[in-house]
Amino acid sequence: MTDPLLAALEDIAGAAHLVVDAAAMAPYLADWRGRFTGRARAVVLPADTGEVARIVSACAAARVPIVPQGGRTGLVLGSVPDASGTAIVLSLRRLNRIRHIDPANRTMTVEAGCILYDIQQAALEAGMLFPLSLAAEGSCTIGGNLSTNAGGTAVLRYGNTRELCLGLEVVTAQGQVWDGLRGLRKDNTGYALRELFIGAEGTLGVITAAVLKLYPEPKAVLSALVALDSPQAALGLLALMQDRCGAALTGYELMSDFCLRLVAAQFPGLPKPFAAHYPQYALVELSSTESEDHAAELIESSIGAALDAGIALDAVLATSGAQSLGLWQLREHIPLAQAAAGKNIKHDISLPVSNIPAFIEQTGAALQAAFPGCQLVCFGHLGDGNLHYNLAPPEGLGHDSFLAHQESVNRIVHDSVAAFGGSISAEHGVGALKRDELPRYKSAVELDMMRAVKAALDPLGIMNPGKIL
Amino acid sequence: MTDPLLAALEDIAGAAHLVVDAAAMAPYLADWRGRFTGRARAVVLPADTGEVARIVSACAAARVPIVPQGGRTGLVLGSVPDASGTAIVLSLRRLNRIRHIDPANRTMTVEAGCILYDIQQAALEAGMLFPLSLAAEGSCTIGGNLSTNAGGTAVLRYGNTRELCLGLEVVTAQGQVWDGLRGLRKDNTGYALRELFIGAEGTLGVITAAVLKLYPEPKAVLSALVALDSPQAALGLLALMQDRCGAALTGYELMSDFCLRLVAAQFPGLPKPFAAHYPQYALVELSSTESEDHAAELIESSIGAALDAGIALDAVLATSGAQSLGLWQLREHIPLAQAAAGKNIKHDISLPVSNIPAFIEQTGAALQAAFPGCQLVCFGHLGDGNLHYNLAPPEGLGHDSFLAHQESVNRIVHDSVAAFGGSISAEHGVGALKRDELPRYKSAVELDMMRAVKAALDPLGIMNPGKIL
Repeated sequence: MTDPLLAALEDIAGAAHLVVDAAAMAPYLADWRGRFTGRARAVVLPADTGEVARIVSACAAARVPIVPQGGRTGLVLGSVPDASGTAIVLSLRRLNRIRHIDPANRTMTVEAGCILYDIQQAALEAGMLFPLSLAAEGSCTIGGNLSTNAGGTAVLRYGNTRELCLGLEVVTAQGQVWDGLRGLRKDNTGYALRELFIGAEGTLGVITAAVLKLYPEPKAVLSALVALDSPQAALGLLALMQDRCGAALTGYELMSDFCLRLVAAQFPGLPKPFAAHYPQYALVELSSTESEDHAAELIESSIGAALDAGIALDAVLATSGAQSLGLWQLREHIPLAQAAAGKNIKHDISLPVSNIPAFIEQTGAALQAAFPGCQLVCFGHLGDGNLHYNLAPPEGLGHDSFLAHQESVNRIVHDSVAAFGGSISAEHGVGALKRDELPRYKSAVELDMMRAVKAALDPLGIMNPGKIL
Repeated sequence: MTDPLLAALEDIAGAAHLVVDAAAMAPYLADWRGRFTGRARAVVLPADTGEVARIVSACAAARVPIVPQGGRTGLVLGSVPDASGTAIVLSLRRLNRIRHIDPANRTMTVEAGCILYDIQQAALEAGMLFPLSLAAEGSCTIGGNLSTNAGGTAVLRYGNTRELCLGLEVVTAQGQVWDGLRGLRKDNTGYALRELFIGAEGTLGVITAAVLKLYPEPKAVLSALVALDSPQAALGLLALMQDRCGAALTGYELMSDFCLRLVAAQFPGLPKPFAAHYPQYALVELSSTESEDHAAELIESSIGAALDAGIALDAVLATSGAQSLGLWQLREHIPLAQAAAGKNIKHDISLPVSNIPAFIEQTGAALQAAFPGCQLVCFGHLGDGNLHYNLAPPEGLGHDSFLAHQESVNRIVHDSVAAFGGSISAEHGVGALKRDELPRYKSAVELDMMRAVKAALDPLGIMNPGKIL
């Protein structure tokens, strides 16, 4: 190595863990959705926190940018380098040990490169639940989940990733190790640094390990699909279920009829729960730490009450785990059905739950006015106010031609989100993809504070530049 | 007013809301526990956020320190000025409107000066629960609760104050208004500024309003007092209750026999649940959103299982709200009984739950070796790992003579807390009281990051100086 920085990195991580060959680097540079491929000076894969610290120090000394990377499943271009070819990609994949499980404290200490699925399994083997669950769980790493404050399907009950983490180990932008691996549920001894690094998308430092919260494993998880007249009715059912079931309500997903028609067309082998069609459907999940009987009685009585009150039009209750899985497959196949039908213009938005019906109505009308016949694929985590609000072209218009309108579609949707008090990124983060959107929707006061925090913790500006800010 | 700053403040808030007279200022300057009285240049009571912003701007222009103040019930000298007499006390008490309740979103927007009790009541009137609950709830303000990330008795189920807040309005140290009053359960559009201001004890800016989370109101809340052999048995019972009851377990308090003897001696009119004495007691609280029958069945079967397994020695189940209240009165009278018996040396500590039995044993032994016969008043929120670990003098030694040993007692206790991976401030904060303790127990890396954040958001250092850092 004649390049002194690369020679230093090789010295730290070993030649086998420094990738400089273009072909070998390629898998680390491509966006998950295949929209963009960046360039890098090298990819380095350290073995442990000490090596991460030495790598960051070497890059800081050379003023070379660092792009921390986990499973590279992010959807906003947060974990791939830009096109300049100046950055070092720092892959955390080799930091993949589960360091410790403390059953009595209900915590697990894991390294950043652990795959989410492996963490879920380790928790189950210890008789407990790590509730974070999302589509990419077989590939994504906990470091990436933490850095993007990942959401998923269990937020209603357990919160976002930030709420599932008690402590962090971080390599700072100066290459120092902060040992904040505390397993405490109460600790008021200073500023919320843990919360700050979580969701910072690698722009403030590198998360190398974390203490995660574990929960009692439910004895039964049962689901139901409920047919509804409107998003307003879905809100009514949500309120009724929460009032009756409290924390036992662990999932509440909304899907429009168009979503289920799309799934049925692309995946005809999946269950068809209803003979008739209804405007909207809620997928409801109940978990009981008591018993399967308790879960069954609770879901039956609650949905029975919703039918009696005219809030629900019809319902299918899964009476077994396999049936539950079938209902969830309908929900999980919506993005796959979309992809199979052709590219969509996608939005990951959140709103105050109370504003969702009016948002859906008014935004849909604005989009129809601008793009007559466009087709809305609207589904998501209604209980958290999080919609995946995607747009397919009008019948007859090609998907690629429609994608040319992406910017004007985004403007209509995001302006409407802002008008209804929502967020243009509910759970995916900002990355490079939404960076230029941010100044339109965040106040100058907030952006100034964010820039001040960034300058305070990463004064050289080497941590994942061009992301978020 | 010949003092130009005071003239400016009078102009902003009105003469009736600027206090400069020494006698009139006195109530704003005294520590809640009566250990310290500070001095101030003036006390100002603005009417709204706009006035707060103008006051902070005026103080910033004059480089004059500001001490934000709520209900002044804090226990670490965080909300009173120091002895220099240079600071302006900024009382938020007049910002006391509940701005908005959004039932479908389960949120409430409140101003910083609202009394916690009034917020709890407003939530109940709207048919929902705001779960934050602590001894000072009749006097403390939500602004203070947020600024100290208050804990209390419901953390096990609902989290600390930080987890109960979705959005903030803040006047920055530059006197700008940040409108972060979002009512969103998912929002990944940048750094965790909300989390950062919460728990910052007014050292980064002034919280003027907040969006709070509301929860379904339980249909029944039942308690039981369980007699136990040891802290280890209390951990066993906690695990059993969590596995069986999940989120229905909303409270889990530990009390030693010495605590209950103290209460019985000072308050002989309170209930005496057991004829015999046992080493430890757990006060267990269950909430059900389903029905009183469900809560009763669940608490009976769970505690029955604990008795059968030999984890519990005896138990008293409250069969009514009034009986539950009686059991909680025992718990709530411990601090009062302590105060009546004479001054104690107090600690508000947290530990990984799994370390509590060894901590209690080893720390008790170290204290007995140093102060033979000293008496431990150890109780607290075991489910959160939070102990109020207080020390009364040996029989015969006066309380005041014992208080002279406060520094050496603190050293033994806090060093032991650190050795067991704990925190020297679980829920009270740092304030001025524990500021000098912090560098002993926090790494230089963490303190440097805290100082960098402080300098970034409050470059003039005018926000509550001398607190935390």
